[in-house]
Amino acid sequence: MKYAIIGAGAVGAYFGGRLAQAGHDVHFLLRSDYDYVREQGLYVESYLGDFHLPLINVYNDSALMPKCDVVLVCMKTTANHSLVPLLSPILTGHTIVILVQNGIGVEADVQAMLPNVRLAAGVAFINAVKQSPGRILHAAFGHISFCDYSCHDVGVLSSIVSDFKVAGVKCRVADYAETRWRKNILNMATNGVTVVLNARCDELLAQNDSCQLVRDLMIEGVMAAQSCGVSAISTELVDQMIENSRNTRFATSMKYDYDNHLPMEIEYIYSRPISEAESRGCRLPKLRFLEQQLRFLDR
Amino acid sequence: MKYAIIGAGAVGAYFGGRLAQAGHDVHFLLRSDYDYVREQGLYVESYLGDFHLPLINVYNDSALMPKCDVVLVCMKTTANHSLVPLLSPILTGHTIVILVQNGIGVEADVQAMLPNVRLAAGVAFINAVKQSPGRILHAAFGHISFCDYSCHDVGVLSSIVSDFKVAGVKCRVADYAETRWRKNILNMATNGVTVVLNARCDELLAQNDSCQLVRDLMIEGVMAAQSCGVSAISTELVDQMIENSRNTRFATSMKYDYDNHLPMEIEYIYSRPISEAESRGCRLPKLRFLEQQLRFLDR
Repeated sequence: MKYAIIGAGAVGAYFGGRLAQAGHDVHFLLRSDYDYVREQGLYVESYLGDFHLPLINVYNDSALMPKCDVVLVCMKTTANHSLVPLLSPILTGHTIVILVQNGIGVEADVQAMLPNVRLAAGVAFINAVKQSPGRILHAAFGHISFCDYSCHDVGVLSSIVSDFKVAGVKCRVADYAETRWRKNILNMATNGVTVVLNARCDELLAQNDSCQLVRDLMIEGVMAAQSCGVSAISTELVDQMIENSRNTRFATSMKYDYDNHLPMEIEYIYSRPISEAESRGCRLPKLRFLEQQLRFLDR
Repeated sequence: MKYAIIGAGAVGAYFGGRLAQAGHDVHFLLRSDYDYVREQGLYVESYLGDFHLPLINVYNDSALMPKCDVVLVCMKTTANHSLVPLLSPILTGHTIVILVQNGIGVEADVQAMLPNVRLAAGVAFINAVKQSPGRILHAAFGHISFCDYSCHDVGVLSSIVSDFKVAGVKCRVADYAETRWRKNILNMATNGVTVVLNARCDELLAQNDSCQLVRDLMIEGVMAAQSCGVSAISTELVDQMIENSRNTRFATSMKYDYDNHLPMEIEYIYSRPISEAESRGCRLPKLRFLEQQLRFLDR
């Protein structure tokens, strides 16, 4: 299968790089990193093993790319308004577009923009940052779940999982709503607070008041998921997420964006899930309050 | 009547200074400003007229002060644990102690420390800052309400009001619970948010999301007051407070404390009123969330 990676920030560069390293046919659409990567290739420093891809297929215009079977959209959701012209040149009637993005509601919006495209979600758990153009540091985790949204083709998702596994990436097919909500509950409870309080997760969880605050946000997140019909998620998730985050010493993605003066993904991480739950009668006062604080800081 | 001013930050120095300027018998207990004020006197730059008091009665030890009829406690509530030794030398059986402090519950706690003292609240609306030792800038407002807590003596409060009026201070006797809650609703809705979002009131109110956030906090504050039996306060207060704060370009007292690495008055402005309302079954999720954020920042 021919893969396209749209937007090679740390996440796209890592997963696309692993596929390319394993010999798959991968085509990267880059913007600011294009010149560097075309000349020097892609460097990945990973806790699972470093690698360098000196010659990879890079483009700075999707019109120059080949049609692809699988498109991994790895841009921030804040740039999704530009997706239609970016994707149109590389789509065929059977292309699977996988949104490796944060939040709730993103597939619905992209489907509205591209009604005929076959969509899936790619829910990644990875800590990776771009240190400079073409140079990625992968510090922790690194697995991804693929979830059917509108491709309704278990076979093709299984083939993709298989390609990723061959490339050394822990990977599986998973339930769409449960997986998206599970990650978003963690994101809602930690991303915004690390921005507003200028702190890391481990610092927040080390103090009683702020740990209770994160816990309260997670509980609201669980209630939101349940109100949206995700019965597989219960408050038992909360203790588990708290424990898993206790030693998280790196910045959340939203904190990284804020500190680098990039727009924050408030819309899909907060506003959309909050509004969807509230439209079902579920009140989320603390999440809404945090969303309002972030909107102020994002001005 | 003989007045003592305990703690001459901007508020104590301004009100005590006005009394002294009018010829009343006023005794100031100072700490860090003692040497300067003893030598140079007190300078007040006020939008209502500047004044300088070259010779005033200043002390750095309350044991050296005379017994007083009226004691205005103008320290931050965060120092109240030191009140008993500070006040004991200057109290007589009939001394009125007026707590010119922020928050809800402060009189109850001081009464527990000093069971026989006659207490009143002094609820000040003033914007004043100390610019350097002995030098106060009074930029806006400047009125104070005196509220009976346990002195049960309308005559003496009226005499104090009369002394303040003679000194040019807008002043009245007012209902204790209503007045304390009215000011605290404003403090709860603005102080903490200016700290957490690093912004002034006018900036917060100029944007829809953050204005809604302040409004939501005020509504919770009104619900808290009502749950504690203050029926004279209704949500009509909210629009009025929002309008009155739209042009507030100076820092709140809590922001001033935070920026100057002083402890914040979280206990009496947030924790106590929230707990009192919650113990009456009133849920205040947004105020509680903000309190938790402030506790983290106050570490």
